[in-house]
Amino acid sequence: MTAPLPAASRLPLRDELRGLEPYGAPQLDVPVLLNVNENPYPPSDAVVAEIAAAVADAARGLNRYPDRDFAALRADLATYLGVESGVRPRPDQVWAANGSNEVMLHLLQAFGGPGRTALSFAPTYSMYPEYARDTSTRWVAGRRADDFTLDLEHVRAQVAEHQPSVILLASPNNPTGTALPLDEVEEVLDAADGVAGGCVVVVDEAYGEFRRAGTPSALELLERHPSLAVSRTMSKAFGLAGARVGYLVADRSLVDALRVVRLPYHLSAVTQAVARAALAHSAALMAQVGSLRDERDATVAWLRSRGLTVADSDANFVLFGTFDDRHAVWQGLLDRGVLIRETGPRGWLRVSIGTPEEMAAFRAALVEVAQL
Amino acid sequence: MTAPLPAASRLPLRDELRGLEPYGAPQLDVPVLLNVNENPYPPSDAVVAEIAAAVADAARGLNRYPDRDFAALRADLATYLGVESGVRPRPDQVWAANGSNEVMLHLLQAFGGPGRTALSFAPTYSMYPEYARDTSTRWVAGRRADDFTLDLEHVRAQVAEHQPSVILLASPNNPTGTALPLDEVEEVLDAADGVAGGCVVVVDEAYGEFRRAGTPSALELLERHPSLAVSRTMSKAFGLAGARVGYLVADRSLVDALRVVRLPYHLSAVTQAVARAALAHSAALMAQVGSLRDERDATVAWLRSRGLTVADSDANFVLFGTFDDRHAVWQGLLDRGVLIRETGPRGWLRVSIGTPEEMAAFRAALVEVAQL
Repeated sequence: MTAPLPAASRLPLRDELRGLEPYGAPQLDVPVLLNVNENPYPPSDAVVAEIAAAVADAARGLNRYPDRDFAALRADLATYLGVESGVRPRPDQVWAANGSNEVMLHLLQAFGGPGRTALSFAPTYSMYPEYARDTSTRWVAGRRADDFTLDLEHVRAQVAEHQPSVILLASPNNPTGTALPLDEVEEVLDAADGVAGGCVVVVDEAYGEFRRAGTPSALELLERHPSLAVSRTMSKAFGLAGARVGYLVADRSLVDALRVVRLPYHLSAVTQAVARAALAHSAALMAQVGSLRDERDATVAWLRSRGLTVADSDANFVLFGTFDDRHAVWQGLLDRGVLIRETGPRGWLRVSIGTPEEMAAFRAALVEVAQL
Repeated sequence: MTAPLPAASRLPLRDELRGLEPYGAPQLDVPVLLNVNENPYPPSDAVVAEIAAAVADAARGLNRYPDRDFAALRADLATYLGVESGVRPRPDQVWAANGSNEVMLHLLQAFGGPGRTALSFAPTYSMYPEYARDTSTRWVAGRRADDFTLDLEHVRAQVAEHQPSVILLASPNNPTGTALPLDEVEEVLDAADGVAGGCVVVVDEAYGEFRRAGTPSALELLERHPSLAVSRTMSKAFGLAGARVGYLVADRSLVDALRVVRLPYHLSAVTQAVARAALAHSAALMAQVGSLRDERDATVAWLRSRGLTVADSDANFVLFGTFDDRHAVWQGLLDRGVLIRETGPRGWLRVSIGTPEEMAAFRAALVEVAQL
């Protein structure tokens, strides 16, 4: 006779999940939070009032299921993108979900899955392998060049070798800040066209609005490339990380495939109302993005002036280094009330762009800790 | 030379998704909507005001990510369940997601997936096979007895044959309204304990609050059964279908497994705020559930008095029949402005319980159409 097994060991947990901890940066209570690329500016009083009014209106009908196809939100997103990027998709080319991570899940449910491969190039967003794991998609990470750009010869070789059904390209890339020139995206699309079973190329522009003047959006390529999907989020530029609204633009045939795998009514009436209320204020919010871009450029310049190596950034964060003991630098900053992220290749650290006051606190702490 | 393939055919859509249409009942604009088991009562002015205030408060911090573990909401749900069922779980035994369909997705991602089997007994909720398909879980549907109860001998044989890692039991069952006695649930749990790799039994109590006096909740079994999960939703009893809040109670080890597969920050700060505002008014909302139960019982009695066959119902809908041409009855009702659902076994129809006025319209239309 053996003793009964403890409860957890009788659960049929999938082997690949055993012993894993849930994903997520530490949520610490620190005065200056520069660790998860949030927008430091809370919604204005005007936006808060618009959100509250829109939600009150939606609340009166909450006993009914929401519009499964969120037609009004798709139209508003299409209009916004037209202003932001100069490329205005049709509403039926727009998809949305609870954060761009749910958009990615839908993509991998439709085009990845068992027997399929998703390919990306590291260092890149650390959630990508989790999306692959959650959909039982094989995950292959190629590498980026030393300056974090794509090595196109390597890309072509990886695509030919692994025959991925999905390629994920973050641009601007997280955690490096690197944006991809459109001719390079087109080279990847060309390589993807050589995959026998077809291959969807996803350009993840979560930080797209922060790109520097002259950096184009992959939205410009959509018309010519029906296997291209460009994803965006309202978490960063719109300062709505708490509202969980990600979206995607692609050929309608691709969007229609996502409609089959989405859970019905995945986007609540409240989420739709909040997103539309914020989109109504996009002009003011985009002005704020301009301030964050300036602060980002100033941060890059300051770090370089102090002798540090800094990756070019088109995002609202900056990867800098290199430090022999980056953990000591991270901890030293934390001890001074500034939380940044210990991520990226060995020796590098990532700081999100905060308010001018927060960046001053970051600089003062770093001067002390790293003896700049 | 062949012509280039159309765009859609070059997409690597998974074979099992080709040609499928998105799930969902027709969303028609009809005066009397009794087709998707919504609560007919919109939130009261007091609840609307509480929701608007709670969301305005949350909106001021929407630039930050939400609490990933929604601790306050879990505590509120635990308190509510204690009042509703007499079983008060610890907050760490509670899980929540965007609708109970996302809860089911998490369950199948953790405990189903490739090489695994999910088992249920039909007729039952038509989304279950979609959850299985979306997670590449093999789907097996056994059958219920002619009176829609479980045939326990058949259940044991199916479990032994298919060795499922997940068993889904809706109680009250959709579309039949049938609740499971606890001794039958325990028989299924006993059979599940015989599965070599372990097996999670999910009792889906989406309609649990509508159960008749004396019908117990499977929550009472949780303490003795670490492989049991009981799911609920705020869509029905709370009248919050538009807010998308489903939840689950189970042993903490089971809940911790769901934390690994959930997308980080899956539950927005707004969703958390809306749910908590409604939970603060649960006493008033539960009184409304009492009225719906009375209306349900009156509907069952009336249908039987007209000579129809009616399944016993512990839910906010009633399955009745049988009709040689149920589609003609459905269409006749629709022509009279009453939308019900053509679902369930051949010859049956399902009507959701609406307001007294809506049910009077349903009865008047049915008398005409079916010449009762």
